[in-house]
Amino acid sequence: MGHGMRIAVDAMGGDHGPATIVAGALDGARRAGVGLTLVGQTDMIQAALATHDQTGIDIEVLDAPDVIGMDQHPAQAVRRLPNASILVACRAASSGSAGAVVSAGNSGAAMAAALLVLGRIPGIDRPAIASFVPSERGRTLLLDLGAVTDPRPAHLVQFARMGSAYAERVGGIASPTVGLLSNGEEPTKGNQLVQETFPLLAALAGIDFYGNVEGTDITQGVVDVVVTDGFTGNVALKVAEGVGALVVAALRSEVTATLPRKLAALLLRPAFRAVGSKLDYSETGGAALLGVNGAVVIAHGRSDAKAIANAVLVAHRAASQEVVAHIGAAIAAPLGAANPSGPATPTP
Amino acid sequence: MGHGMRIAVDAMGGDHGPATIVAGALDGARRAGVGLTLVGQTDMIQAALATHDQTGIDIEVLDAPDVIGMDQHPAQAVRRLPNASILVACRAASSGSAGAVVSAGNSGAAMAAALLVLGRIPGIDRPAIASFVPSERGRTLLLDLGAVTDPRPAHLVQFARMGSAYAERVGGIASPTVGLLSNGEEPTKGNQLVQETFPLLAALAGIDFYGNVEGTDITQGVVDVVVTDGFTGNVALKVAEGVGALVVAALRSEVTATLPRKLAALLLRPAFRAVGSKLDYSETGGAALLGVNGAVVIAHGRSDAKAIANAVLVAHRAASQEVVAHIGAAIAAPLGAANPSGPATPTP
Repeated sequence: MGHGMRIAVDAMGGDHGPATIVAGALDGARRAGVGLTLVGQTDMIQAALATHDQTGIDIEVLDAPDVIGMDQHPAQAVRRLPNASILVACRAASSGSAGAVVSAGNSGAAMAAALLVLGRIPGIDRPAIASFVPSERGRTLLLDLGAVTDPRPAHLVQFARMGSAYAERVGGIASPTVGLLSNGEEPTKGNQLVQETFPLLAALAGIDFYGNVEGTDITQGVVDVVVTDGFTGNVALKVAEGVGALVVAALRSEVTATLPRKLAALLLRPAFRAVGSKLDYSETGGAALLGVNGAVVIAHGRSDAKAIANAVLVAHRAASQEVVAHIGAAIAAPLGAANPSGPATPTP
Repeated sequence: MGHGMRIAVDAMGGDHGPATIVAGALDGARRAGVGLTLVGQTDMIQAALATHDQTGIDIEVLDAPDVIGMDQHPAQAVRRLPNASILVACRAASSGSAGAVVSAGNSGAAMAAALLVLGRIPGIDRPAIASFVPSERGRTLLLDLGAVTDPRPAHLVQFARMGSAYAERVGGIASPTVGLLSNGEEPTKGNQLVQETFPLLAALAGIDFYGNVEGTDITQGVVDVVVTDGFTGNVALKVAEGVGALVVAALRSEVTATLPRKLAALLLRPAFRAVGSKLDYSETGGAALLGVNGAVVIAHGRSDAKAIANAVLVAHRAASQEVVAHIGAAIAAPLGAANPSGPATPTP
C-alpha cells in the first residue's frame, strides 16, 4: 500500500461537527503523507475546507446526504440510511479507493456499517474495539471496549490473537505479552467467563500469555495487551477517564486557591502540560475496530481536531502495516488454532 | 449499643504486621471513644502495645494462635484453623462482647469466617463488599467489590437495598440515589445481567433508582450508590487505584525534573497534599461486608496505621448506626420486596 494511500474520514461524526473533523483530518493527512477522502454532506465539507490551507494534500470529497444521529439504533440506522457518511466511507474502503476509515460518529453504527460493508476476517466470529491506554511503562492495549458485552471464551481467545497482532504491527511491540483481566492474579480467580477462558489462552500457541492481571496492572504496564469482555472493558476505560478528570479538577481547585499557589502553578505549567499530554486519551488516537475486513478507527465522539489527526495517523499505520492480513494469518495458522469447543491441545 | 461498645480488631492481618495494626487500632479507638478487643498472638500484641500510650482506652486482648496467610484458600483455612484471629474476632462479635470486627487480613477468609460465625441477615442470599470512593461531589458507595463474581439479578437487587441502607446510615445521605453500572446510560444498554436487573430495580420500592450509570459517573458523583457485580466492581476499583498512582508518578517525575520546578513544587506542597488526601483510598476507611449478621469492615491488606484507624471509625459507625438492623428491616419490608423469580410488581 503506502504510495498513494487515501484515508476515508467520516466528516459528519462527532460532537463538534464537520469543521473540527475536517481540520483534524487535514492535519493528520499532512503528517501521515496520505490522501484524504472526506465523506459527508458536500456543502458542509466544502465550507470547512475553504477555511484551511490544503496545499500538498490530495483531497477527494464523497457526498453522503444521510446523517445517523448519536442516539439512533445502529443496526436499524445502517439499514435505513444507505447514504449515511459511515456507509459511504466503508464502501470506499471496500472498493480499495481508501485504505482505511476514521469515524467519530455513533460507534455502534460504525461497527454495524463495517460489518455490513467490509465483513469479517475469516475465522473471526465477533469484532472487538481496542485502544492503547497510558501506562507507567508507555502504553497498554486494552480490548474489548464495548463491541461484545457477553462474549464466549472462544471470542476472548480471538480477541487475544487480534490484540497481539495489533500491538505488534501498530504498537511496534515485538512478541507482546497478553494478560486476561480478572479480580486477582491467581489462575483460579475470575468470573465464570475468565475461569473458562484462562486454560484456553494458556494452551494457545502464537501468543505470549502472561496469565491473569488486575485492574491496577493496566496502568502499571505489567503486560502489553489486556483482554476482557466489552462490558468490563468499557467500564474500565470510563473509570480511568473519570479518575483522570477527578484528579485534574482537584489539582486545579487546590493550585488556584491562593495567590502564591497560583504563581507557583504558573512556573509548573510546562510540567502540568507534560503530565496532561502523557495521560491524555486523545493522544492515543482512537480505538481500532479489529476483526472486520478493513482498517477502521473509531474516534471518541468528544474528539477535538488533535484527536482526529491522531486517529488518521493510527488508521494509516494500521493500513500500511497490514493489520488485517496479519490478523487473518494469525487466525488461520494451524499451530495453536483456538478450539471453540474446548481447551486447545498444545502443539509440540 | 453506643455505651461501652468494643471493636474487635484482627491484629494479625495486613501486610505491615501487628505493630501497624495495633497503632492504628489504638488511634481509631481513642477517636471513636470505644473499647478495643485486639485479637491474635498475645505476645506479639503485647509487644506492640508496650510501645504505645494506652491511657483512656479499655483494651482487651484475645489470644488466637492460628494464622491464616494471605494466599490460603479462604473456606479451607477457616475450617482448618478454628483459632485463627479472624474467627476469634467474629466470635467476639457473635457473642455480643464486641460490636464490630475490623480485619486487614485475607479478605476471602474474613468473608468465610463472617458467614460461618455470624451468618447472613434473613432475606440476603449473598453478602457484598462495599466501599466509598472519592467523587467530585464527595463520595460514592460502590458495591460489590469482589464478594460475588457471577451474581444473579436478584443478588444485585439485594445489593441495591443494602447499599442504600449503608449509604444512608453510615454515609449520612438521606434517600440516596442508586445507579446500575453499565456500558451506557440508556435502559437498553448493558450485558445480559444488567439488562435483566434494570427492570427489577426500576420496579423496586424503597430505593431511589436513577437508572444506568457509566464508569465516568462514579467519580462525577452522579448517584450516591453504584451497584455492580463483584468482578466488574473489583476491576473498577483497581483501575481507579492504578490511574491515581499513574498520575502521581507522572506528576512527581515532571515537577522534580528541574530546580525551578522543584522550588515551585515546594510552594505547592500543601496543595498536592490536599489533593492526595482527597483521593487517598485509605481515608475512606476500608470496605464494609454487607449482608452478614454483624458489622464487619475489611481493610486493604496494604493498610497503614491511618487506614486502620479509619476502619475502626467506620466499624464503630456501622455498629452504632445499626446497619444490620436497617438492612434487615429493608429486606423484610412488604412494599417492593424483590421477587427473585421475575420482575417485581410495582406497588401502588
